[in-house]
Amino acid sequence: MITPEIKQQFISIVGSDWVKDSPNELYAYSYDATPMFQSLPDVVVMPATSGEVSALLRLANEHGIPVIPRGSGTNLAASTIPVQGGLVLQLHRMNRIHEIDTQNLTATVGPGVITADLHQAVEAYGLFYPPDPGSMRISTLGGNLSQCAGGMRGLKYGVTKDYVMGLEYVLPSGEIFRCGGKNVKDVAGYDMTRLLVGSEGTLAVITEITLKLLPLPETKRTLLAFFTSLVDAAKTVEQVIAAKIIPATMEFMDQGTMRVVDEYAKLGLPLEMKSMLLIEQDGPEELVSKDIASIAEIARANGAASVEVAATLEEGAKLLTARRSALSALSRIKPTTIMEDATVPRSRLADMVAEVERIADKYDLQICTFGHAGDGNLHPTCMTDERNKQEIERVEQAFAEIFAAAIALGGTITGEHGVGLAKLNYLPLKVGEGGIELMRRIKAAFDPNHIMNPGKIFAGSARRRMVVRR
Amino acid sequence: MITPEIKQQFISIVGSDWVKDSPNELYAYSYDATPMFQSLPDVVVMPATSGEVSALLRLANEHGIPVIPRGSGTNLAASTIPVQGGLVLQLHRMNRIHEIDTQNLTATVGPGVITADLHQAVEAYGLFYPPDPGSMRISTLGGNLSQCAGGMRGLKYGVTKDYVMGLEYVLPSGEIFRCGGKNVKDVAGYDMTRLLVGSEGTLAVITEITLKLLPLPETKRTLLAFFTSLVDAAKTVEQVIAAKIIPATMEFMDQGTMRVVDEYAKLGLPLEMKSMLLIEQDGPEELVSKDIASIAEIARANGAASVEVAATLEEGAKLLTARRSALSALSRIKPTTIMEDATVPRSRLADMVAEVERIADKYDLQICTFGHAGDGNLHPTCMTDERNKQEIERVEQAFAEIFAAAIALGGTITGEHGVGLAKLNYLPLKVGEGGIELMRRIKAAFDPNHIMNPGKIFAGSARRRMVVRR
Repeated sequence: MITPEIKQQFISIVGSDWVKDSPNELYAYSYDATPMFQSLPDVVVMPATSGEVSALLRLANEHGIPVIPRGSGTNLAASTIPVQGGLVLQLHRMNRIHEIDTQNLTATVGPGVITADLHQAVEAYGLFYPPDPGSMRISTLGGNLSQCAGGMRGLKYGVTKDYVMGLEYVLPSGEIFRCGGKNVKDVAGYDMTRLLVGSEGTLAVITEITLKLLPLPETKRTLLAFFTSLVDAAKTVEQVIAAKIIPATMEFMDQGTMRVVDEYAKLGLPLEMKSMLLIEQDGPEELVSKDIASIAEIARANGAASVEVAATLEEGAKLLTARRSALSALSRIKPTTIMEDATVPRSRLADMVAEVERIADKYDLQICTFGHAGDGNLHPTCMTDERNKQEIERVEQAFAEIFAAAIALGGTITGEHGVGLAKLNYLPLKVGEGGIELMRRIKAAFDPNHIMNPGKIFAGSARRRMVVRR
Repeated sequence: MITPEIKQQFISIVGSDWVKDSPNELYAYSYDATPMFQSLPDVVVMPATSGEVSALLRLANEHGIPVIPRGSGTNLAASTIPVQGGLVLQLHRMNRIHEIDTQNLTATVGPGVITADLHQAVEAYGLFYPPDPGSMRISTLGGNLSQCAGGMRGLKYGVTKDYVMGLEYVLPSGEIFRCGGKNVKDVAGYDMTRLLVGSEGTLAVITEITLKLLPLPETKRTLLAFFTSLVDAAKTVEQVIAAKIIPATMEFMDQGTMRVVDEYAKLGLPLEMKSMLLIEQDGPEELVSKDIASIAEIARANGAASVEVAATLEEGAKLLTARRSALSALSRIKPTTIMEDATVPRSRLADMVAEVERIADKYDLQICTFGHAGDGNLHPTCMTDERNKQEIERVEQAFAEIFAAAIALGGTITGEHGVGLAKLNYLPLKVGEGGIELMRRIKAAFDPNHIMNPGKIFAGSARRRMVVRR
């Protein structure tokens, strides 16, 4: 409960412009990009400095007010839904790129910096920040860290956690700490940096981020291959790796996704094909040419019905944009689009896609699958309508089976979206009840009063209140 | 206190051949590679399976017996000294390479596998495990994980933590858990994998490890450059990076180290030079040629008095072996050799080396410096004699100043050795007392009875007993 006195204290910390609690404003922060989850916060507060974050957290901690750190709310696991009400800590004002250090190849930024803005800023120096989640034009780096966002370059370049070198973070107690820094090697105590990345705002608030950068690859080239069978596409992926080639990007779309994307982006894709691979290699020109030629050969040897190489960088970018539009394109089909990210070891890709098809048939659902083939990170996406209660029940059952199938294949319930609210019932499949208990104890080490994003990751504490449906 | 009844229970778990408590045997496990630290354990037990580890831990936990997991004892932070006595859990029998998965590019191994044995095994498949700590021919992968070992390839390839994808681990309670796996992307809950790596055996016992592999680079080439000034060498390192070249290895030796290494390995180095860089690039032939030519040019432009490129792979390997022998060579000079690993952001390399020289002069000590220039990871190494109490006191003061200097330059107290006993007094410099308190609470989440490697990382609990000096 936020009393007028507490609200006054919030105002004295950040100023009255940055404390919002009108019904319209609360509504705007009641949902994120995850369909079918919504709950109103009690107040939205927008700090501009670590000091303000610290003062707000101390106050919230004292009064047992839930705190939900938030960037752009693009996450797909309902991780920023204020399921127990409380204070949405909206961090978009902390959006400065503090430094691009060209000697140590690092960037130091506020959590509110937009991912694509950082890309652009470092590319101006010939540098490269590889993580490129689908939402990168909207998402913030703070949000990327909270969820350990992935993207299309996971196989060759890794994901967000592989680029976080140092953090400033604030505990619920208000204490401001730093971990890591600009050192390539640093083993002074436990690796707090990696623990905070992917913790979904349940441990602390990240207020400054030092990221590792790479030299920008000299060039890149894009190849499309179309297959009459799913297995041939998966074999191509396997044999490219077996040939010791690690492409920057290896994206997969099934026939359903191809159709929808083609209609949306007017690409003239051969829609009679069962699946498509979009492969990109980057690096020095001579190497890129050699790798793309080898990949084309491998695709043909594995039954690709056609292989095209983009003639120019622009053409390559257009193809990649088409792949990036898959979710938007699919979203136009039906009122509700549920995108999941069941993930398997790369060698089980074909098995997993087949499982998704079998399960979609079994429950009579429209599920299209696309994703990051090189990572085994699939996005089975269900087009449905949340008003159709019967169908939604079948959707839930189907996804439960999809997650179980991923685990049976040595995979995981989430590759890059996170657990949040959307998957907390499935987490025991992956880490066991004992593993969850251990994580709860780690959370208590940071947040003994359980104010940080309560109800997320861990089941059993998700008491919902004031749910307003869209 | 280990009673005859408890000893009998150890024997019933692992068999009488694998429980050691004769004075000679206890003595052999009373020290590791860190000079001037020694303490006798009460018993040494050598399990062969996770089940045995689990049973041993449950028993130790019940009776409050300290447990010190141990591989080959090559660590340099006194992390495996049984400073409170107890049970040394010697893991060398868990030395099977369970699987090399050429499709998913992973290796799954027991913690007792020797690092160099894994290198050899995966290279037979054209694959590559980059971490190469100095002790790799003796050290175990379990030990590498416990300390988050580094090596010569940190800049381009990262360190141990960057290659750990999945673990099986045992809690003091005896519970056997798994985290991570073969998935390139996996965000199901907190990243336990990265938390356990570098935790120095204070949280749990690692019983199985899944490591990421890369394709083995096609070739490599080695370049030596000699400089009449330290600053020129540091500028060369900076400008190579500024030219967007990331070499596989960039090693630095000062004049003192060069002299000792040359005497040991008979290389005919130009000993009038003030410093030397050994740079190696790997990758496809055409790229390696281009990079090595660019690096040679940059070195010359920055005042290198001479630049040599190894004519053959064998010649390159010989030069690298010479660098690898630096510690052995330095160890021959005086009875006691103390190697440290103060680390700074790469751009502060020259400043840090100058600080080390200034501090060595101030305390009238012989300190040679070599290390991983690309990482800013330096190994100032003091040749001394532990019987000379007066000098040892000056050594302690000098290193305290060296660590403070590293921190002042934005660096850290340890880049790749760990905290252990040797540096626990310096940890507050890097993470603050509050940061240490947070780490203590995390430890308690794993190990509520404080049986796991007690006295390490955290100061104040290092009650010594039965110290036997060499």
